[in-house]
Amino acid sequence: MATYKTLPGFRDFYPEDCSLRNHLFNVWRQTSKRFGFQEYDGPVLESLELLTAKSGEEIVGQLFNFEDKGGRQVTLRPELTPTLARMVGAKANALPRPVKWFSIGENFRYERQQKGRLRSFYQFNADILGESGVIADAEVIGLLVESLCNQGLRAGEFVVRLSDRNLWYYFIESLGFTGEQAMGALGVIDKMERVPAEKSQAALAELGAKDPAATLKAISDFQELPDVCTIKAYLTNMDLEESARDKLLARLDVWRELLSLLIAAGLENFIKIDLRIVRGLAYYTGFVFEAFQTVGKGRALAGGGRYDDLIEKLGGAPMPAVGFGMGDVTLRDLLEEVDRLPKLIDKADIYLVYSGDDAFKTALADAYALRRQGLRAELNYKGAGMGKQFKQAASSGADFALVYGPDELAKGIVTVKHMRSGEQQEVPATQLVGSVLALWREG
Amino acid sequence: MATYKTLPGFRDFYPEDCSLRNHLFNVWRQTSKRFGFQEYDGPVLESLELLTAKSGEEIVGQLFNFEDKGGRQVTLRPELTPTLARMVGAKANALPRPVKWFSIGENFRYERQQKGRLRSFYQFNADILGESGVIADAEVIGLLVESLCNQGLRAGEFVVRLSDRNLWYYFIESLGFTGEQAMGALGVIDKMERVPAEKSQAALAELGAKDPAATLKAISDFQELPDVCTIKAYLTNMDLEESARDKLLARLDVWRELLSLLIAAGLENFIKIDLRIVRGLAYYTGFVFEAFQTVGKGRALAGGGRYDDLIEKLGGAPMPAVGFGMGDVTLRDLLEEVDRLPKLIDKADIYLVYSGDDAFKTALADAYALRRQGLRAELNYKGAGMGKQFKQAASSGADFALVYGPDELAKGIVTVKHMRSGEQQEVPATQLVGSVLALWREG
Repeated sequence: MATYKTLPGFRDFYPEDCSLRNHLFNVWRQTSKRFGFQEYDGPVLESLELLTAKSGEEIVGQLFNFEDKGGRQVTLRPELTPTLARMVGAKANALPRPVKWFSIGENFRYERQQKGRLRSFYQFNADILGESGVIADAEVIGLLVESLCNQGLRAGEFVVRLSDRNLWYYFIESLGFTGEQAMGALGVIDKMERVPAEKSQAALAELGAKDPAATLKAISDFQELPDVCTIKAYLTNMDLEESARDKLLARLDVWRELLSLLIAAGLENFIKIDLRIVRGLAYYTGFVFEAFQTVGKGRALAGGGRYDDLIEKLGGAPMPAVGFGMGDVTLRDLLEEVDRLPKLIDKADIYLVYSGDDAFKTALADAYALRRQGLRAELNYKGAGMGKQFKQAASSGADFALVYGPDELAKGIVTVKHMRSGEQQEVPATQLVGSVLALWREG
Repeated sequence: MATYKTLPGFRDFYPEDCSLRNHLFNVWRQTSKRFGFQEYDGPVLESLELLTAKSGEEIVGQLFNFEDKGGRQVTLRPELTPTLARMVGAKANALPRPVKWFSIGENFRYERQQKGRLRSFYQFNADILGESGVIADAEVIGLLVESLCNQGLRAGEFVVRLSDRNLWYYFIESLGFTGEQAMGALGVIDKMERVPAEKSQAALAELGAKDPAATLKAISDFQELPDVCTIKAYLTNMDLEESARDKLLARLDVWRELLSLLIAAGLENFIKIDLRIVRGLAYYTGFVFEAFQTVGKGRALAGGGRYDDLIEKLGGAPMPAVGFGMGDVTLRDLLEEVDRLPKLIDKADIYLVYSGDDAFKTALADAYALRRQGLRAELNYKGAGMGKQFKQAASSGADFALVYGPDELAKGIVTVKHMRSGEQQEVPATQLVGSVLALWREG
């Protein structure tokens, strides 16, 4: 007999895992609502063209893409941002601004499997569109931090590393790169944490750096600057054209504004300026950030930034935007690592114990009446002995057992047993539902 | 500039639609939990073989199937039952019985588009496995009825049409069909509501009916029998071999047992015996049922039945099973038709109105403090005039506006305005969060 397996990189959610997944979703959802974000969702299947328009043809290698039966080139979505851009673009003029939206959905990437990288994963996305001021960046970063805190994480267990593609772009320009070259150099900086220095230097040479060693040194030094004051001092002392310096220093004023908002919001212990962060995706246009776990494996939990040009590029009206995405897999792993996964309780409220067929039908009627009042009421389906049923009542976690034995039937009553205390009382069968509800409310 | 569109048969969920979708899901979820069902989920992508093992090669024409980058034949799931069978089969011995599981997930079918039939739709599935007694059928039907009631539907607006493939099989046998022929005849009966009589008669002839006209007449008469008494009288008077009659009458005893449970549960107004229901899928092995709307367009809302052989067929241990599936599309349409869609309220709790940059930062700090207490606290991002901010406070639906004007700042207070009554009070800035929470609890 054939047995069938889950596809590699996909997950089954048996009840315990499913409850935990839903709990993570609920925390994301509740936190977003407190910030005034509204939930949306789009199809998991999109036209391939929407994806390549955003990310270029090279993304196709990582997609679950195919031709559908109508000859359309389609793909399972690898991320939600193109869908968001399409949806906001289609109704841009009808939507009150700022658009504050979040979504929790499944994404799919065909990639080599490794810990924390599945082919199917859930992602929490939150974005503010139509607001170019740094308050939008601050609110999105605030939602990111508060979401992680509400999941059970604490200051010192994760940090949001904050950087800025604008500042980097101006800095790279000041080193003699322009346009496409500068974008290429940002790509080199993005990878510097992970590749040997010689390789980065060679890449800079290839991009046309006149003195690759000095350029690499300047970049490396700049990357290590830990705060706005030090960055300002570094730029003031650097050998720079005045216009380049002015552009850089003006950008630092925007930094100060953002930081003052993050401090007002009480987020200072969660933020770390870290210019090593550049974010690989070319469409970011301003502040970028990544949330990292600072305990355990030190992996990234979330990433995001400002992308003011993307909506227009994907066919919508010009619309500034900032947002982030957070996956469920590394978050769940981290919560497990720090032993902060909630113990979710799956228990009955009421368990009905009966003897014989008539009692069973009376118990079933009462179970339905209690369910209609919102209680979880269970009973044995097999007509097992009452001793066995009492054991099931105990293991169901029910707060009360209702007993429909021969004595009770004869007397026209039901015995209500409080499972923790063992206390019992007799209740007239005709008043059962009201009595149980009253006892239930007392606890 | 290119604009991209949603694929045909797929839906975007803008916030209003998304809230409504989530509301339907929550009602399904809560009702299931009251019955003691646990939630599970499986991947939306499965191996094609799992689907064809259940439904045969002919299903492939209706699938979003493709070859993935690893050369695997895969498909978006068109239904959840094969996944359920795979999951339960893989852990059959570890799962306490009965297994009572439900799921709410997305399914995909490549089919011609029409009202109520999309290519992507959500389905609520609930199943009891490992219990062969009719109590399992009754509980599943009860969950179906209560789910629809909790969605806002009432007796007289829908009905569960109850039938039985066993009774039909025995009846068809008594007309001279056996084995494959009998299964073929069930297929003819399934379609009788939708095709002309001549066509059904020809199909019966092709299956080897000796007197196709008489056979069709017998089937048509049997279909119309409205209750167990009438069915019993019909079978008693029919010209039948004694062993065939005994089999049929014994099956009617099982019917009586099921009906007595449904009556005990208070479901009699929602159940209608209707032997025209056969259910097209060959794997059903006993009672089958469909929920129909009896107002408006009269479409099917849900369908299900017993399928005792499927888990074993898909590679698991033998395990009796009964369950149903209910889609979101026809349900939503019906609730709209009878004007029973909930008016979901998306509103702020607190709106903070400020004047100037310093006041903004104080308000932002308080907004975060209130959010950390679970309230939805919003404020204008642009520093608009206070008059405009008060309008936004009103349209946000907030219960309280907090005012951070120049007077308030000078006096070290915040004015708290109850939006419905217009009443105002001054609260020391240092005690703001506690005071607002206290007022909030009072309403």
